[in-house]
Amino acid sequence: MDTLFDLRLGTLGARYRAGNAAPRRLIAQLREKTLKLNDEYHAFIHLLTPDELEPYLAALDDRNPDDLPLYGIPFAIKDCIDLAGIPTTAACPAFAYTPEISATVVRQLVELGAVPMGKTNLDQFCTGVNGTRSPYGECKNSAHPDYPAGGSSSGSALAVALGLSSFALGTDIGGSGRVPAALNNLVGLKTSKGIISAAGVVPICRSLQCITYFTSTAAEASRLLALTACTVPDPADAYSRANPLWNDGKAFGALPLPFRFALPKTLEFMGCAESAAIFARTVEHLQAIGGIPIPIDFTSFLEATRLLFKGPWVAERYGDIGPFAEKKPEAMLPVIRDVLANAPGITGVDTFHAQHRLQELKAECDRLMADVDCVLTPTYPRPVTLTELHAEAVRRNSDLGYYSSFMNLLDYAAVAVPAGFLQNGLSSGVTLFSLAFTDQNLLSLAHALQRKTRLPLAGGNALNDSHVAN
Amino acid sequence: MDTLFDLRLGTLGARYRAGNAAPRRLIAQLREKTLKLNDEYHAFIHLLTPDELEPYLAALDDRNPDDLPLYGIPFAIKDCIDLAGIPTTAACPAFAYTPEISATVVRQLVELGAVPMGKTNLDQFCTGVNGTRSPYGECKNSAHPDYPAGGSSSGSALAVALGLSSFALGTDIGGSGRVPAALNNLVGLKTSKGIISAAGVVPICRSLQCITYFTSTAAEASRLLALTACTVPDPADAYSRANPLWNDGKAFGALPLPFRFALPKTLEFMGCAESAAIFARTVEHLQAIGGIPIPIDFTSFLEATRLLFKGPWVAERYGDIGPFAEKKPEAMLPVIRDVLANAPGITGVDTFHAQHRLQELKAECDRLMADVDCVLTPTYPRPVTLTELHAEAVRRNSDLGYYSSFMNLLDYAAVAVPAGFLQNGLSSGVTLFSLAFTDQNLLSLAHALQRKTRLPLAGGNALNDSHVAN
Repeated sequence: MDTLFDLRLGTLGARYRAGNAAPRRLIAQLREKTLKLNDEYHAFIHLLTPDELEPYLAALDDRNPDDLPLYGIPFAIKDCIDLAGIPTTAACPAFAYTPEISATVVRQLVELGAVPMGKTNLDQFCTGVNGTRSPYGECKNSAHPDYPAGGSSSGSALAVALGLSSFALGTDIGGSGRVPAALNNLVGLKTSKGIISAAGVVPICRSLQCITYFTSTAAEASRLLALTACTVPDPADAYSRANPLWNDGKAFGALPLPFRFALPKTLEFMGCAESAAIFARTVEHLQAIGGIPIPIDFTSFLEATRLLFKGPWVAERYGDIGPFAEKKPEAMLPVIRDVLANAPGITGVDTFHAQHRLQELKAECDRLMADVDCVLTPTYPRPVTLTELHAEAVRRNSDLGYYSSFMNLLDYAAVAVPAGFLQNGLSSGVTLFSLAFTDQNLLSLAHALQRKTRLPLAGGNALNDSHVAN
Repeated sequence: MDTLFDLRLGTLGARYRAGNAAPRRLIAQLREKTLKLNDEYHAFIHLLTPDELEPYLAALDDRNPDDLPLYGIPFAIKDCIDLAGIPTTAACPAFAYTPEISATVVRQLVELGAVPMGKTNLDQFCTGVNGTRSPYGECKNSAHPDYPAGGSSSGSALAVALGLSSFALGTDIGGSGRVPAALNNLVGLKTSKGIISAAGVVPICRSLQCITYFTSTAAEASRLLALTACTVPDPADAYSRANPLWNDGKAFGALPLPFRFALPKTLEFMGCAESAAIFARTVEHLQAIGGIPIPIDFTSFLEATRLLFKGPWVAERYGDIGPFAEKKPEAMLPVIRDVLANAPGITGVDTFHAQHRLQELKAECDRLMADVDCVLTPTYPRPVTLTELHAEAVRRNSDLGYYSSFMNLLDYAAVAVPAGFLQNGLSSGVTLFSLAFTDQNLLSLAHALQRKTRLPLAGGNALNDSHVAN
């Protein structure tokens, strides 16, 4: 195995500490690898040049790997999250601006020793969950060229899945940090709203937008969350909140035993028998590690999804990017313009009515979850091909988001975790979700599931018990 | 002293338990007294007839006063809160409907032994804080005929202030449970949103509407809160929430010593030197009982007030009562129609923008409050006369709400507490407020203040140390 490409936090950190690797050389090698792959996958919109990388590497020169938790760890940044001095495009060249300071979370990671590799491709203005809606090229799936990478955090998922970064930052409004994880054999942590500061993220639906991490393992996501979760609200992000539950990662791995997991009484796989079989196997795995399945009615969750797509939240999106859309309509992809078309006609009365309905749905969903540790769903019902997406862009995009789009509206935390592979090599996944602030509990369950399934990890990372500690 | 009219929970309860009073006789006497006063004050829209009272009294016949915490305690109900079998009007006769079941909180109180006296007058559709906006007559102040009772829960405040009920239920969107308390020498507890179920309350701005209690003393409000706060969310009210802090009243009276109270760096009394003097004296009282005053910038709180009046929340109100207003515009008072006039033109984009701004203001206000136990403000800057209200209805109404209208938007709990009297006999008050769920802490502070000031109590209730235990 080419150890260059086992980039998991624990493995790479151990190599640095043992003197078996050095950031400067490793980052240069990853940069070369990225340059080779990027024409095919369009994962990066901007890969940092050696000159742009230098300050981050220089800052590590006189530091001891033992003193920095993320010493020399390469990471990728979705291009709606600011990195100082590098343009932020949101996948719209005419929108680009160059921030003077990095997003809070980027600054935190850099201070901990992590090294930014570059800015990654996305569905324009985070609108979509498929990965094809970008003027910087379609993001192909890491395992199968006929499929998309998923989105909107497409390039970030690819950066980890292709072994170009240890982890990547994404964002998520209705599935953008989870669908690409499922399609690329990754863990996707959609944090509880606000527990990681979103200061320095292009505001799009700011009442719903969450920071996400893509990693190979739940253990890594737990570590990253512990290192960057707010201990007090970030004054620069009005939506940030301190996590009232534990978030330091110390209890990571501890499971309530037996634990109870809900799952939809009626499951939807849109005809994909392989997805159904993988999900059924996951239920068995969870039972084998002490889980008790509790079927629940899923109607209210799915009604919340319809609220996101048909309701007034598109006006929130429009409120943030509408002024730009009005000034430069031609600069936006037609599919994004179409999504926004009805937004100006939405009234305040419509908005409050939908918010009241959402409150009712949340009360109902919370009640359904009152007695369980988490809910298990497929992350996507079935994969869709690039050909299908080109033929029916909006419908197929919605198919992918079927099980992910309600969670931010309902203020839940979620972890997408790999669950198996289709015959064609494409990965399929499940999502564990629960009430806000349960992130670390969900990661503990995801970790237990990964230990049980022992699936090959993404990015060429080794499959062995060491991922338990990573 | 006429002991009939010392109606405090503790005093009256003790008399029942000692066999010195009986509900049937007491309620009949209060009914007579109410009939005498109602032509002047218009406190009640509907006073229960002897026949309507009978089932509530009969239910007490075979019960021991020791077994029911509110055995025989008379209370009044704002007429936007359902009492089974009695019309709910919201002060709009054409809107009236007769509910089959009582509001959750009314049902709770009745089950505890309390006896409903009737439905009280209000500013139509809870729109206003002055008490003159009702086709059922203007609510005059309990102490001075040239002044209004305050609103919108005008009649409920009068029922307690005039000694017609032990306590009364009100509601509060932007001051309706506090301004009338201040103007009538009462404690007004504006509970944290949702900790008392609002099921069975006419929905008007349901994201902001809170249940309130009017009492003579903070001790009584504490007791009532402890008896009726949600231990789990009420399935019938999507906005209800369980109180994560203590709400059982057991720790009532315990003060952090020393405690820190913030107050506005710049105070507004609109030229009323007497209000200013009473407030200054209150600051001294709080210092004398262990409080440390911390002046804070009040700009962001006041901006939130402007958001309520100028922002999109009028569309929320319109969403609830708009269909009625469109069908029967002539059935609404012109001043209420005027308040709603701009609502249909408010857009979804406007709404989300204002909600984003509110989130920023809340983050800022929460930060300002991070280091204090509560914030102290006047409840109203200065009283306004009925003549002034008739001359400039909207402006003078806003004057009264100057210090109360931001709190529900910012999700705070508040207690209005009497602080002194103007030369003309009118009462003035202060409000203690803090983060959601601090209700009992605020009541403990209010109780300490009442013990310190030893002001005459409303409703002819005796002023002596016994109110400590009531």
